[in-house]
Amino acid sequence: MGFLTGPIPVLPEGSTLPATSGTKPPAVVALGGGHGLSATLSALRLLTTDLTAVVTVADNGGSSGRLREELDVLPPGDLRMALAALCDDTDWGRTWRDVMQHRFKSRPGVEGSLDNHALGNLLIVTLWELLGDPVAGLQWAGALLGARGQVLPMSTQPLTIQGDVLRQTESGLRHDTVTGQAELAVAGTRSNVLNVRLLPSDAPACQDALTAIEKADWVILGPGSWYTSVLPHLLLPQMRDALCATSASRCLTMNLLNETKETAGMSAVDHLHAIRRYAPGFKVDAVLADPAVVGDRDAFTAAAAEMGARAVFGKVGAAAGGPVHDPLRLAAAYHDIFGES
Amino acid sequence: MGFLTGPIPVLPEGSTLPATSGTKPPAVVALGGGHGLSATLSALRLLTTDLTAVVTVADNGGSSGRLREELDVLPPGDLRMALAALCDDTDWGRTWRDVMQHRFKSRPGVEGSLDNHALGNLLIVTLWELLGDPVAGLQWAGALLGARGQVLPMSTQPLTIQGDVLRQTESGLRHDTVTGQAELAVAGTRSNVLNVRLLPSDAPACQDALTAIEKADWVILGPGSWYTSVLPHLLLPQMRDALCATSASRCLTMNLLNETKETAGMSAVDHLHAIRRYAPGFKVDAVLADPAVVGDRDAFTAAAAEMGARAVFGKVGAAAGGPVHDPLRLAAAYHDIFGES
Repeated sequence: MGFLTGPIPVLPEGSTLPATSGTKPPAVVALGGGHGLSATLSALRLLTTDLTAVVTVADNGGSSGRLREELDVLPPGDLRMALAALCDDTDWGRTWRDVMQHRFKSRPGVEGSLDNHALGNLLIVTLWELLGDPVAGLQWAGALLGARGQVLPMSTQPLTIQGDVLRQTESGLRHDTVTGQAELAVAGTRSNVLNVRLLPSDAPACQDALTAIEKADWVILGPGSWYTSVLPHLLLPQMRDALCATSASRCLTMNLLNETKETAGMSAVDHLHAIRRYAPGFKVDAVLADPAVVGDRDAFTAAAAEMGARAVFGKVGAAAGGPVHDPLRLAAAYHDIFGES
Repeated sequence: MGFLTGPIPVLPEGSTLPATSGTKPPAVVALGGGHGLSATLSALRLLTTDLTAVVTVADNGGSSGRLREELDVLPPGDLRMALAALCDDTDWGRTWRDVMQHRFKSRPGVEGSLDNHALGNLLIVTLWELLGDPVAGLQWAGALLGARGQVLPMSTQPLTIQGDVLRQTESGLRHDTVTGQAELAVAGTRSNVLNVRLLPSDAPACQDALTAIEKADWVILGPGSWYTSVLPHLLLPQMRDALCATSASRCLTMNLLNETKETAGMSAVDHLHAIRRYAPGFKVDAVLADPAVVGDRDAFTAAAAEMGARAVFGKVGAAAGGPVHDPLRLAAAYHDIFGES
């Protein structure tokens, strides 16, 4: 690591990009959670300086789940990942991003209480406990990273995802209620996750997130775990209303893998139908999909049209390394979509 | 907290104080650990911009002890406290100091794996794991705080303190070996901690610390837990040699409380004798003591003279709130001592 031998850098002065022309950058809000949202943010930061991430807060697994249980806080993990994706592109920004993303690994044989905790999760929780305000805490974490945008929770209250799951058993179909994002994310078999809901059902949305959506030029939903990172934004009543009411253009970005543990057996068209089923009033201007995951283009285009959207097919997957969006390809696709609106 | 409503501050440009005159500030090295070293640093930062803290790394209790056990790292706690004492006096510096000093408190009824861990300890360990270099990690933590000086470990290898303790039992005097700073710190009864030593006995001192001592104008040892924060610097052979060989002037700062669990029954003079017993070759220019803790001034002055030092009596304790050094009074005393050298 080259920076070990050089002087310790300091946070570059100012944390917004200089205006390069008189054109106002588009105000973009990206909603999601986890790796999918990170991918979108890595792309969008190349297109605008007016960027807001709105992140699900229903995670109950891993480091976040343990923190939620032990310290009674919002799950910080997806918020941390979004911040990391926006870090300033300097030694300072990248180093503190690496610090935030670092996970402890207890040495063998020791009962590891810190094992797998990400330092950034602990840092964000500390800021929350110190400042007593989730949004202010995230602003400070963003300032540390020189983040190129703001990161907001969808709600300042921890949420729980619940769903009904139909399981095929020896004695026939069995209907179970599954509570918890971690549990629901692995509960699915073919087309059997039903009635996904948030608890409490009337939790307030984060006011700053609602304001950002209202004032946005573009709102981007997805990619991400369909039931546990994407759909939740449409299950929170205030958020759904804001997403339906905003004058912003809307883009729905499809995943690169249709069949995951929570969406087994679902085609790309099924993904669109799921959104329509839960939020019939949510109209979309563009649906962005990699051709590799769309079987029948005509059927997909028709399903998009039912949501008010044109289907945009673009090669946005990375050239290698699994179903991961390539930030530059995704940026190019968004650039085209924004330009055609 | 006022900064909640204002804009998020950024790290002020540059991390050294501007030169106010052509006079070079004195290069000062302060050695110790824990609260005592923090007090000295809070004072010395008012007197110089060329300040180095050298910190014991034998702690095995509390958050630091658990991290040492679980992650096989240097105990970070005393290093964190030294950094906190040097934080930049701005919203930025004070906020990140508060973040570093924040301790988690698990909610009642939950098996608390994070309980009592200081976030700064976890942050410093993360930097160490990421950079693979204890000194570089502390530089980055210092950069975050805009620290007004550098903080170094006495050794880059975790150390263990061991001592022999004579206990009065029903069947007479019993001789026990006590291993561990936390254990030794509470083991004492009247004059019975003997043969304090570091394991391994030949651990290398931190090279940057040796260099700082060699180039210093003043070296300040103490205040602090006498056997577990002050004496260890004289038990590490390379460090003792450097402290004896440096051309710097030397000041030994006495505690405000003679009788602690590890120094029960010891007078101020006994404290000086303890230093002489372990490091006969360590000469001192000034011994700073609050008159409140010196019983017989003549005896104390004579004991100081045996170490080559003049005794300096000054009211350096805080006006209220227990045996705590007042930074301004301590700064004034050091200022006088430096001026008279």
